[in-house]
Amino acid sequence: MSRVVEFTEYGGPEVLKIVDVVVPEPAADEVRIAVKAIGLNRAESMWRHGNYVEPVLLPARLGYEVSGYVDAVGADVTGFFVGDQVTTVPAFSQNDYGMYGELVLAPASAVIRHAEPLPHAEATTLWNVFITPYGALLEDGTMKKGDNVLIPAASSGIGLGTIQIVNAGGGVSIALTRTSAKREQLLAAGAAHVIATEEQDLVAEVMRITDGKGADIVFDPVGGPTFAKLISASAPGATLFLYGALSDEPTSLPLLEIIPKKPIIRGYNLFELTTDRKRLEAATSYILAGVANGTFKPTIARTFAFDDIVEAHRHLEKNQHFGKIVVSV
Amino acid sequence: MSRVVEFTEYGGPEVLKIVDVVVPEPAADEVRIAVKAIGLNRAESMWRHGNYVEPVLLPARLGYEVSGYVDAVGADVTGFFVGDQVTTVPAFSQNDYGMYGELVLAPASAVIRHAEPLPHAEATTLWNVFITPYGALLEDGTMKKGDNVLIPAASSGIGLGTIQIVNAGGGVSIALTRTSAKREQLLAAGAAHVIATEEQDLVAEVMRITDGKGADIVFDPVGGPTFAKLISASAPGATLFLYGALSDEPTSLPLLEIIPKKPIIRGYNLFELTTDRKRLEAATSYILAGVANGTFKPTIARTFAFDDIVEAHRHLEKNQHFGKIVVSV
Repeated sequence: MSRVVEFTEYGGPEVLKIVDVVVPEPAADEVRIAVKAIGLNRAESMWRHGNYVEPVLLPARLGYEVSGYVDAVGADVTGFFVGDQVTTVPAFSQNDYGMYGELVLAPASAVIRHAEPLPHAEATTLWNVFITPYGALLEDGTMKKGDNVLIPAASSGIGLGTIQIVNAGGGVSIALTRTSAKREQLLAAGAAHVIATEEQDLVAEVMRITDGKGADIVFDPVGGPTFAKLISASAPGATLFLYGALSDEPTSLPLLEIIPKKPIIRGYNLFELTTDRKRLEAATSYILAGVANGTFKPTIARTFAFDDIVEAHRHLEKNQHFGKIVVSV
Repeated sequence: MSRVVEFTEYGGPEVLKIVDVVVPEPAADEVRIAVKAIGLNRAESMWRHGNYVEPVLLPARLGYEVSGYVDAVGADVTGFFVGDQVTTVPAFSQNDYGMYGELVLAPASAVIRHAEPLPHAEATTLWNVFITPYGALLEDGTMKKGDNVLIPAASSGIGLGTIQIVNAGGGVSIALTRTSAKREQLLAAGAAHVIATEEQDLVAEVMRITDGKGADIVFDPVGGPTFAKLISASAPGATLFLYGALSDEPTSLPLLEIIPKKPIIRGYNLFELTTDRKRLEAATSYILAGVANGTFKPTIARTFAFDDIVEAHRHLEKNQHFGKIVVSV
């Protein structure tokens, strides 16, 4: 038996229930994992609301990222052994697998083996946080050295990962945060510049920082009415990624501004990379090397107990945290 | 003295007035042109409304494209001689030059010499119509052979040019038109497929035509609420160009659709190409060769007299025409 998190109706954090289930032996291409830590993602709260990029089938499990030990290995799986430390990568549908549990099955294609042990709480904060910006900015050389990169929602796990990826690639990280409450924390986390968007004129500040040129890249998980300002703050021909939908308001394109300015606006997610094992291994090797040499530092906002999963999701949705929320199992 | 078109306030077609002005000798980098035909562009009616991609300074002239004869040549201009047939290309601000006139000045950088004479009415329909899609789809190989290309506002001058450019590049031209009234005309103009968007289910029709794959490229001058449908009708990773703002309604991005689908949405205009003389000459040579061998055929919707410029603009804004509206001078 294993305790896992399930929900039978869409809704707020309170719909999450811990239930006892029998976790079967892994299928031929699966690994069974004894979970030690779960990293929470915003995507999982959208999933729980039934408002996601794919339909959510009820009853539903959830969760993309855990760290733990291999408990059993499917017949066709090679390279994993019982007792190995492993983490899981978002590379599957939550309709097929949910990682919130004490003992879970995962497709081997989404499992990374850690030859060098890492604390589980840190290990479970690496993939969404670093692969997401790595795939957009570094993998195919989209970001050039010296590029000015705007990072909305900079205090989120991925926001902080993006600051580090931009710095590692020789870009200039410009963190956007609503108020100046987290300014010092963001500078300490490596941001070259911080703009408090509710207190400062976003466009004027970006133009000041970039000597009037505007941003070269925007890496936005928010959308909504601020998106038009991000276009105004961009240089002609800039690339703007939209990888999240945190805003509930419409994301309108100012046509008379984008026709002369010629921005490249790209919908983005990390799945194309994570579902290609060769690209995934290149990404995880790059990130693990950076963790080992101190270039990349996981930021854990707060750790909750598994029994407090509802409270952990409440905290996630308050949008007050700094870094990644972790659940210890 | 020359009769030229001017407006001193923003508004409908009636603000256009024909006035007598003295046209000076050309400056060092200018050519003076005796105009024989003017090709009208939608951009000019937006300009007249004061609703354009740049501020409109009053009193204003207008007009990008004419065909005529060289009347005088600036001191530093080489390669043009009095009496040459020439056309003008949109490669300047209408705050600096306006081509609606009997005798006009133009920057030599925006003037093309026609060694092989063409009827003026046809010659003035070539550049916006063919360079706009050429620059987006063919110049840098964005469109691949076999790509399915959606062409909203297909009956417009540029729409008809896009059908021909797509066909010339080996793509599949899918013309979008509001009703089936122009279906046969569009097929005769080369469209591989025609969808009447007010009578048919746009997304279902595109999926039927493309065997469920969706469009690879969208070349859209409209925006507005239909844009989300164009995204739904696109293949994952498709490129959607927005080069006009014919819709007055907001152009909202469906975030939960674009995050998984990863489209590339690009603001676009032809000025980057037309203001680079080397790229401009490559484009005009390609297009003139196609005109000479019958690949590219100008489509003249209707010809108005210069004195009827107000009526010509009224016709332009009715959106009922098929092809380019020409004013004969």
